[in-house]
Amino acid sequence: MDTPGHQARPVDYGRVFSQAIDRLHAEGRYRVFIDILRNKGQFPNARCFAGHNGPKPITVWCSNDYLAMGQHPKVIAAMEEALHDVGAGSGGTRNIGGNTHYHVDLEAELADLHGKEAALLFTSGYVSNEATLSTLAKVLPGCVVFSDELNHASMIAGIRNSGCEKRVFRHNDLVHLEELLAAEPADAPKLIAFESVYSMEGDVAPIAAICDLADKYNALTYLDEVHAVGMYGPRGGGISEREGVAHRLTVIEGTLGKAFGVMGGYIAADRTVVDVIRSYAPGFIFTTSLSPVLVAGVLASVRHLKSSASEREGQQAAAATLKGMLTDAGLPVLPGDTHIVPVMVGDPVKAKRISDILLAEYGVYVQPINYPTVPRGTERLRFTPGPAHDERMMRELTDALTEIWDRLELKLAA
Amino acid sequence: MDTPGHQARPVDYGRVFSQAIDRLHAEGRYRVFIDILRNKGQFPNARCFAGHNGPKPITVWCSNDYLAMGQHPKVIAAMEEALHDVGAGSGGTRNIGGNTHYHVDLEAELADLHGKEAALLFTSGYVSNEATLSTLAKVLPGCVVFSDELNHASMIAGIRNSGCEKRVFRHNDLVHLEELLAAEPADAPKLIAFESVYSMEGDVAPIAAICDLADKYNALTYLDEVHAVGMYGPRGGGISEREGVAHRLTVIEGTLGKAFGVMGGYIAADRTVVDVIRSYAPGFIFTTSLSPVLVAGVLASVRHLKSSASEREGQQAAAATLKGMLTDAGLPVLPGDTHIVPVMVGDPVKAKRISDILLAEYGVYVQPINYPTVPRGTERLRFTPGPAHDERMMRELTDALTEIWDRLELKLAA
Ligand SMILES: Cc1ncc(COP(=O)(O)O)c(C=O)c1O
Ligand SMILES: Cc1ncc(COP(=O)(O)O)c(C=O)c1O
Repeated sequence: MDTPGHQARPVDYGRVFSQAIDRLHAEGRYRVFIDILRNKGQFPNARCFAGHNGPKPITVWCSNDYLAMGQHPKVIAAMEEALHDVGAGSGGTRNIGGNTHYHVDLEAELADLHGKEAALLFTSGYVSNEATLSTLAKVLPGCVVFSDELNHASMIAGIRNSGCEKRVFRHNDLVHLEELLAAEPADAPKLIAFESVYSMEGDVAPIAAICDLADKYNALTYLDEVHAVGMYGPRGGGISEREGVAHRLTVIEGTLGKAFGVMGGYIAADRTVVDVIRSYAPGFIFTTSLSPVLVAGVLASVRHLKSSASEREGQQAAAATLKGMLTDAGLPVLPGDTHIVPVMVGDPVKAKRISDILLAEYGVYVQPINYPTVPRGTERLRFTPGPAHDERMMRELTDALTEIWDRLELKLAA
Repeated sequence: MDTPGHQARPVDYGRVFSQAIDRLHAEGRYRVFIDILRNKGQFPNARCFAGHNGPKPITVWCSNDYLAMGQHPKVIAAMEEALHDVGAGSGGTRNIGGNTHYHVDLEAELADLHGKEAALLFTSGYVSNEATLSTLAKVLPGCVVFSDELNHASMIAGIRNSGCEKRVFRHNDLVHLEELLAAEPADAPKLIAFESVYSMEGDVAPIAAICDLADKYNALTYLDEVHAVGMYGPRGGGISEREGVAHRLTVIEGTLGKAFGVMGGYIAADRTVVDVIRSYAPGFIFTTSLSPVLVAGVLASVRHLKSSASEREGQQAAAATLKGMLTDAGLPVLPGDTHIVPVMVGDPVKAKRISDILLAEYGVYVQPINYPTVPRGTERLRFTPGPAHDERMMRELTDALTEIWDRLELKLAA
């Protein structure tokens, strides 16, 4: 504060910013993005640029284009057609010139995928979570949000930005959730926000049991199916489709950038809820709508995965095979029966070191997962085998990890 | 509250949501999106779907694909090439598998466009504003943000979500801004957030004078050039390039979805500031990166507009011609010398009615601009003539408006 006789020192902004960066270096979690280009027609193969002499071939083991739909001929053809038919961008917000026929069609397709009355597109899954949660909770005065402790950053942002009360329940812990629900007044609006497949753990929420609690305590439910849509359920409607509980959820949220292989996000819900978000959420209203080229690609992708199960089956088989190999080699794989294969390291510097060796010596690309993406002390490598990863690649990966674990004297599984 | 002897009534969520929608209908500002497809190669021509028997040809007068770059052959060709080379989506966040060589190249290109050390891509202009402002202000404890009263919703969201103190200054009012700056302690971190071209007014901020105040009071500056990049300055670097003040601004923000014709957003700043946002902003970190197909298109667009001035000149000429015609016809055009042509109506129901007649009877599409996009009582039509709108279209538009103004007995210009 500026007090008499005391000359206020001007803020040294450069210093504040440099210190913020220095803290990351000190903790070993300063992020360096590796510079790659994937090769269409040859996923998971790619070229790596930075720090090498010219592009170097690598195998990508951490893509969230889980089913390689980003290179599917139907998706590519649909995008090419849209590009030539209507051009690159939408040229406006959904309300002002940016509502194309593709958007309308895709929303109908996604509503159908989840058996809901309506759906709404956003520019990303992040924005769909942030915009929907912040608006939903704001429209309900006095709303209390119950949030799983491992919820994604985008849900946390939405809840925080709603300004409402939040109770965090222990991961997938029904007893704790019920305790917290019971502690609130019966007439307070309530919203339970959770995910189906947790992306960094690979485990699955007890959706039906959470819906039972929601019924008992008259709470709304919000389910993030970002790591499940396209991949679970007979038509790719996610875990909620597989378990026949989609109709019990107030809002189902998904991404178009992972299993569907393109980019964007959405919610599906009943008509009124969708209309409220459409009408009130700044993150939906005040932004250029998704490029029709992307929307056309997603339309092809969603339609394909509604009727084709081979990609899902290929992915599940690959995940099971890789888990088996890594486990047999004594590597510390986190157990679970989804497509996500986390190998625990527990230290940010070591996780980065393993990743660096894999890239430089083995042409294997897997990103170390550090804080804030996962809690400190649970740093890991996260492998996402897909239908295009074959057994030879898995064998090479397992051997490489075994060698590195030995070289760095890392802990094997107990 | 749940008190003894009083049976708490369960929340009727359906009713709360319906009431929220009813309020919009009652105010005449419930939004109906019109369903269109633009015709590549023939902008501003398009097809309109909803409420008609089959697609009907229309002329779009409210696109923010200001320079029709969304159909430029170089942009289309670049996107097609990327689509075939690397596929549809990036498959990951920037940190985890989604950092392609296209992203790296485009960031370098945008940094150069603004004469800055670095740039950073986001999935939209909205996200770039929200993520950067919320993070910047949070990294500076005790920061006070000075915000122009007409700032865009995305900047308002970012400032609000930062949780820091905010002072709103009257639109483009240097005296008021200085008053507010002087009232804060000299050693408090300060950030002035404003736009260059205000999108709904079409007027321009006194950037140099605001930078003078920033120097005097040791404040950082954040300039949204969303409605100026690609369109002003010898290389399309915006108003800050045109006026030679880009180097004085801490952060310049822009969109890739308007004059550049595609989709996405970015900031340009010095290396450390960009690194702080890259490392700390959840809205940047936790989301699938822009599709490489989009990034490839933007690269072509930015490079083209750096060296070609004909689109900018065509747009300025079209805007001047249209303003002249509308003014001569006595229509209430808001004066200003940018490319934006607002015609004031001052009532949401009338603005929608004019727009409906234009579409149904004249095949002219211009969206009514109502609250919350503009303050209540300042509802308007907002025309964005571009290099592809010819004089015949402008004459037809002027005649149509004159007829409707007469039919609805609306006020002409004073
Ligand atoms: C659980 C979860 N929700 C939401 C998102 C955001 O989706 P998007 O990448 O489409 O922004 C992600 C990851 O990116 C995620 O892991
Ligand atoms: C001033 C301003 N800033 C930011 C944005 C957001 O940009 P984008 O459409 O790329 O999200 C807009 C409009 O959409 C705008 O008008």
